[in-house]
Amino acid sequence: MIDCGEGAQTAFARQGLNMNRLGHIFISHNHGDHVFGLPGLISTMGLLGRTADLHIHGPQQMEEFMDVVLRIYCEGMTYKVIFHSVDTTRHQIVHQDRSMTVWSIPLNHRIPCSGYLFRETPPQPHIRREMIDAYDIPFSQINNIKAGASWVTEDGTIIPNERLTTPPEPPRSYAYCSDTSYLPTLPELLKGTTLLYHEATYPQELLARALETCHSTAHQAALIARDAGVGRLCIGHYSGRIKDEAAHLREAREIFTNTILADEGLVLKL
Amino acid sequence: MIDCGEGAQTAFARQGLNMNRLGHIFISHNHGDHVFGLPGLISTMGLLGRTADLHIHGPQQMEEFMDVVLRIYCEGMTYKVIFHSVDTTRHQIVHQDRSMTVWSIPLNHRIPCSGYLFRETPPQPHIRREMIDAYDIPFSQINNIKAGASWVTEDGTIIPNERLTTPPEPPRSYAYCSDTSYLPTLPELLKGTTLLYHEATYPQELLARALETCHSTAHQAALIARDAGVGRLCIGHYSGRIKDEAAHLREAREIFTNTILADEGLVLKL
Repeated sequence: MIDCGEGAQTAFARQGLNMNRLGHIFISHNHGDHVFGLPGLISTMGLLGRTADLHIHGPQQMEEFMDVVLRIYCEGMTYKVIFHSVDTTRHQIVHQDRSMTVWSIPLNHRIPCSGYLFRETPPQPHIRREMIDAYDIPFSQINNIKAGASWVTEDGTIIPNERLTTPPEPPRSYAYCSDTSYLPTLPELLKGTTLLYHEATYPQELLARALETCHSTAHQAALIARDAGVGRLCIGHYSGRIKDEAAHLREAREIFTNTILADEGLVLKL
Repeated sequence: MIDCGEGAQTAFARQGLNMNRLGHIFISHNHGDHVFGLPGLISTMGLLGRTADLHIHGPQQMEEFMDVVLRIYCEGMTYKVIFHSVDTTRHQIVHQDRSMTVWSIPLNHRIPCSGYLFRETPPQPHIRREMIDAYDIPFSQINNIKAGASWVTEDGTIIPNERLTTPPEPPRSYAYCSDTSYLPTLPELLKGTTLLYHEATYPQELLARALETCHSTAHQAALIARDAGVGRLCIGHYSGRIKDEAAHLREAREIFTNTILADEGLVLKL
């Protein structure tokens, strides 16, 4: 889960999601609209008897709030909440498991703020069944070949790995960049990301307001997407001043066609 | 406002209520489901540019949470939040203005907990227009007569106030009692209350569970209403274990007929 605004626990119920499947929560920055759902979510999972550790990653600034919430409201809970401080000034690995690696993305907001980049562990290549049969390669060797090994026939001929396999699908990736002013350093970090979520708080005509509050315009979000060559851009975090969402979307699409608007409950497949 | 669970600010919007009309919030006790809506509500009113002071009354135990929230998330807000510590062991006036007096009600929960009793300031009696005309009483005397004065005619006859006025409607009152175990001392404090909200977390068949968790059953809530001779009882704060709300209501109505079930968005007129 990324960020946790007020009402997150009821959103889980509304979406038919099981909050106990949550292992890690990544928080971008210590503003209320990104953290005020944590106390309720954490204590409700306690009431439901959760036992698995919950890891929360976020800027050091949120630790004091977490400490008070855990000490005052979560006494005697059946599971542990483990906080991991994220250095918001660096692009580095903050979490890794078998399926993915999570990187921090330094953003520029009024307070320390980090985006997150989720990179799938590169899938293994596909075995070419007909080649395995042709060379009579035993089943025990399949994993080695998936891992890159070539095959040596009885007469010493080397069958290179590329002939035994077809390349895997490219690894998928998702980047979350909110809240931030326009940051020209971002595209370099986001090269080729499958899906980019980038905040677009204001339209370009309120650029001065965006600069003042360290937010981005739809136009700027699209520049980042274009310069990073991402697959798709999803914009969100709109200001209450945006009355015409279609116009907001058009502004972004003028720069980067493959843009969609974020919406409550929207589900995207990578 | 009484108590402030997570999502309170969105409930205001859903009900079409203006949160800036809030002057005082009364919190019963420092459990998450009664306070986790405060950070969002307070900071959103700040973003909306509220200027009027907001008074929060509640047990001293919640002050540390409030302090952290205000210090970390509400810096530079355009209005002040003033916390008033409520002594949860005493029945005393915690707030008074021209229209009402608010009393604390000592409750018995797992942590210090206070109910609240809202008593309307007794309305003034109604002037009997025909008597005013008959005795030719000048307009300037009306307020004195409303306040209880009698009238002396030119020949010295005293017309007692009771002949010049009809009694006002009885003052209305509302009592909020949640969370609490069954407290036989309550009826004495709640005598004749117009509307009583009393928690009814469990059905009587889970009495042991109610005792253990310091909650009440529907049966017990109705006993309080009956013994206090209240006008109407509203029960709520149901456990997730209550699948049959109609049965829960029947259990209370066996003791006290004029009982209704609380529900999200329910509006009651006193």
